[in-house]
Amino acid sequence: MKKEKVLNNGPWIMSVSPRLSPPSLKDNTADLDRLVKGIRKEMGDEHVKVDFSLIRDLTRSLREYHYQVSAALFEGYGCWHLIDVFKSGPGTHIHGLALDLGSSTLVLRLIDLETGETIDETSFHNPQIEIGPDILTRIHFATTEDGLLKLQDMLLERLNRAILEMAQKNDLDPVSITGMSVAGNTTMTHLFLGLDPYWICREPYIPVINTLGMVKAGDLGISINPGAPVLISPNVGSYFGGDLVAGILASGMTLRDETAFLVDVGTNAEVVIGNRDWLMACAGAAGPALEGGVAGMGMMAGPGVIDKVVIDPDTLEFQIRAIQGETFDQMDNAQGPVGICGSGLIDLAAQLFLAGMIDLRARFVPERCGDRLRNMDGIMHLIVVPAEDSGTGAPLTLSQTDIEGLIRSKAAMYTILTTIANTVNISLGEIERFYVAGTFGSYIDPRSAITIGMIPDLPLETYVSLGNTSLEGAATALLKSDLRQELFRIRDRITYLELNVNQEFMNLFSAAKFIPHTDRSLFPSVREWRSPKTQG
Amino acid sequence: MKKEKVLNNGPWIMSVSPRLSPPSLKDNTADLDRLVKGIRKEMGDEHVKVDFSLIRDLTRSLREYHYQVSAALFEGYGCWHLIDVFKSGPGTHIHGLALDLGSSTLVLRLIDLETGETIDETSFHNPQIEIGPDILTRIHFATTEDGLLKLQDMLLERLNRAILEMAQKNDLDPVSITGMSVAGNTTMTHLFLGLDPYWICREPYIPVINTLGMVKAGDLGISINPGAPVLISPNVGSYFGGDLVAGILASGMTLRDETAFLVDVGTNAEVVIGNRDWLMACAGAAGPALEGGVAGMGMMAGPGVIDKVVIDPDTLEFQIRAIQGETFDQMDNAQGPVGICGSGLIDLAAQLFLAGMIDLRARFVPERCGDRLRNMDGIMHLIVVPAEDSGTGAPLTLSQTDIEGLIRSKAAMYTILTTIANTVNISLGEIERFYVAGTFGSYIDPRSAITIGMIPDLPLETYVSLGNTSLEGAATALLKSDLRQELFRIRDRITYLELNVNQEFMNLFSAAKFIPHTDRSLFPSVREWRSPKTQG
Repeated sequence: MKKEKVLNNGPWIMSVSPRLSPPSLKDNTADLDRLVKGIRKEMGDEHVKVDFSLIRDLTRSLREYHYQVSAALFEGYGCWHLIDVFKSGPGTHIHGLALDLGSSTLVLRLIDLETGETIDETSFHNPQIEIGPDILTRIHFATTEDGLLKLQDMLLERLNRAILEMAQKNDLDPVSITGMSVAGNTTMTHLFLGLDPYWICREPYIPVINTLGMVKAGDLGISINPGAPVLISPNVGSYFGGDLVAGILASGMTLRDETAFLVDVGTNAEVVIGNRDWLMACAGAAGPALEGGVAGMGMMAGPGVIDKVVIDPDTLEFQIRAIQGETFDQMDNAQGPVGICGSGLIDLAAQLFLAGMIDLRARFVPERCGDRLRNMDGIMHLIVVPAEDSGTGAPLTLSQTDIEGLIRSKAAMYTILTTIANTVNISLGEIERFYVAGTFGSYIDPRSAITIGMIPDLPLETYVSLGNTSLEGAATALLKSDLRQELFRIRDRITYLELNVNQEFMNLFSAAKFIPHTDRSLFPSVREWRSPKTQG
Repeated sequence: MKKEKVLNNGPWIMSVSPRLSPPSLKDNTADLDRLVKGIRKEMGDEHVKVDFSLIRDLTRSLREYHYQVSAALFEGYGCWHLIDVFKSGPGTHIHGLALDLGSSTLVLRLIDLETGETIDETSFHNPQIEIGPDILTRIHFATTEDGLLKLQDMLLERLNRAILEMAQKNDLDPVSITGMSVAGNTTMTHLFLGLDPYWICREPYIPVINTLGMVKAGDLGISINPGAPVLISPNVGSYFGGDLVAGILASGMTLRDETAFLVDVGTNAEVVIGNRDWLMACAGAAGPALEGGVAGMGMMAGPGVIDKVVIDPDTLEFQIRAIQGETFDQMDNAQGPVGICGSGLIDLAAQLFLAGMIDLRARFVPERCGDRLRNMDGIMHLIVVPAEDSGTGAPLTLSQTDIEGLIRSKAAMYTILTTIANTVNISLGEIERFYVAGTFGSYIDPRSAITIGMIPDLPLETYVSLGNTSLEGAATALLKSDLRQELFRIRDRITYLELNVNQEFMNLFSAAKFIPHTDRSLFPSVREWRSPKTQG
């Protein structure tokens, strides 16, 4: 037997065209042996394995195509595995899929595996939302009779439909899809694979599996080539899933010397710090306020939802931008805004602070707020959009309670960043790169987030928005052998920090509940940005 | 990733008892990762792979047994694969099966994989005999609708019954059978695997597959542990199958310096010559006479069938031994003999020659045969057993035609041996070891075979009867990693010699049609053994 191939920066799913001569009395090598021999010759004598379940069809195709075939292979577990053979001819490419397996939304990308180019991308709701929008409801449902099977089936049925539609739209045969890469959180990965998620949410919170590696598409019931490998991004634990591991890969932070933060902001704040040499991660509840879930006018980003606010510190005039259709537009449409999303809320709070309308304790300043301030049911509200300009017919307001929710969330985020940096004995100022992941994260204006003290006061160019890192990481691992290896290396190298909500944490948290912070020296830029008139 | 393990002389299917602590908040490694980690620790950090299809059951067992398990694993394709986990406890052994997949008879051996000892053995008819006793009929049947599936099903159904009976008899659970090794000819191997044998008997005679390696028992539908590897002995080609490759392994000839012959005598004579450094094989029609198929009184070995004959050269009295029940006995039973088997026929011809009753041209010598000679329908017959002593009520006779059939067969065998030895430029006298394989072969008396010139005149101790080498080879490959590797090395190293029936072959054949040979100097012993009275 040969030594294991040293992984390189080439593809791990590839197509070769072996030169096979048809059998004759002079060369009566068996069909499959002939194919394997031809492939090995083409690939420099690599070991090639053929799964038993494929042999019957493979040998039938081989004869049908008169031994003029191209062969798709993937590398794994120390040798190459035959996926399928195709009638050889010009223009026949193999394709791959990357899937971001979100609990709300699935995003599917179609890739040409020979050029590495993205051909198409689509997204659709996770059909399991019908069972329950939150993960806990689904875990509970999985314990009912056939519940797990049903959850898996509805997911696969929807996914297969999306795959077929995408294949039709792009005029390609689904069997030409010879590889797939999937990244999801730990529970979604379990539900996708039909594995019991019962213990994920129960002490001591252990999943059935963290590192699976690869599954054959045919074994999973995915409507692509049945021999295609499906790469499953590994989990670190119940609360740090394959989506985040793929995200780290996508950021490239583990390939560089500079120490970077990677933050995925949502209901949970997942934070990773590290570089080429080390990697530490933690996840903590940042509060739903950041996703716009708490504020009275808060909502998920969508048409008519405010995502940017500018307040003139002199005139105290509000400039408001809302999301229009799928693109952003100046708020000049007849339809008024209907709510505010997380990034809009951060903008609003930052602008209120810079305009002196809220103070460092995040309380409304009546003399600056003027007419906009109203007492409703004993709680102070700021009218952001008056009823006559609103799309709902009612005023859009921000209450003192809403602001307090936001402040708790931003304080939690800053405290988590400080805690993990302290753990590795690095000051926040030393961070050379700060990656923000997630669709939500990509809308956040770093200047606003710094202003309210949610993220450290680093030069603005330090902040890089990465978008859907889960999808990007899945696609990256699908294309390159060394980056697939890096995905598992990342998982193995992560030190997971359990956040202890102890006295030190609470002290840090209390200090971070001010805008931007009790220690103003941590946020010198905010002083500069604030209008001299509003300096309290 | 690790380098591929260098195969050693240890087992490739083994059981380990990892020390696993149940999950806790301090160690919340996922179930499967915990198991794999524990196994790797026990095995010195070998790479351990777990097939997706097993994960659900494995993790369920793990919890059911409270993490106190032993794990069965097999080594293959550069890493170890988990087969199953068992409740750990004393006296739980893993077991294996070796199968000789004959076209007429299947022989199944049950082995304790931890001690290597044989626990039980059983044999039964191949149920495909119902479709056709010969391979060609079965190949034809396989092309009819569902024919291939039916042939495979009847085989597996019968095999599974035998496995269950054997497990019950030996009081063990079939899931404790975690490995199997199968050796059969090329067609039987195809039918066993459900692969199309169509081209095996059609020019240019190429099988679907020669080297398959391993299949999971669950994928094949064999009623042992579904995760158990089933090792399939590789074929060299349509006419040199895995049974013969396993036989070479069993002989050990490829592990030694001495040059040896390995001969499997049947309807075909399969001949292998070689040593540690090189290996050449050929197969040729030796004629059915050797298996007792042609002679009027010839039949397969069985109760009442003559297997040994001694003729007193002075009195010309016949001493005849027949097979009694399953054991051999002196012919003193009331029931007389009913026929003669191949080894008996060789004995008879040798004794007739030594007693001067046939000459070197294999013709009856009337003055020595006396009363025993009769003309029946124009052909001379020798009465071997008179009607009054026969089990059939009729005399058992040997005709001139029967002898000629035998002589053609023995001449073919000797010519094949000479031809293959000439090809590698070795004289027959240089052969240091001559292995005779097969049940039939084990009954042949080398002295008789030398006397008629069927095999070379080597010292009698050169001849070693090996019995069922196909079964033995399968068992050997099941037990040791290096010998499993040797099985595939043998297949890859064999040079297969196509026998050309050209002028040179015909000249050799003509010379070998004498008893023992036209060149008497090749058989000095025969001169010695022959009574002075009968020297012609």
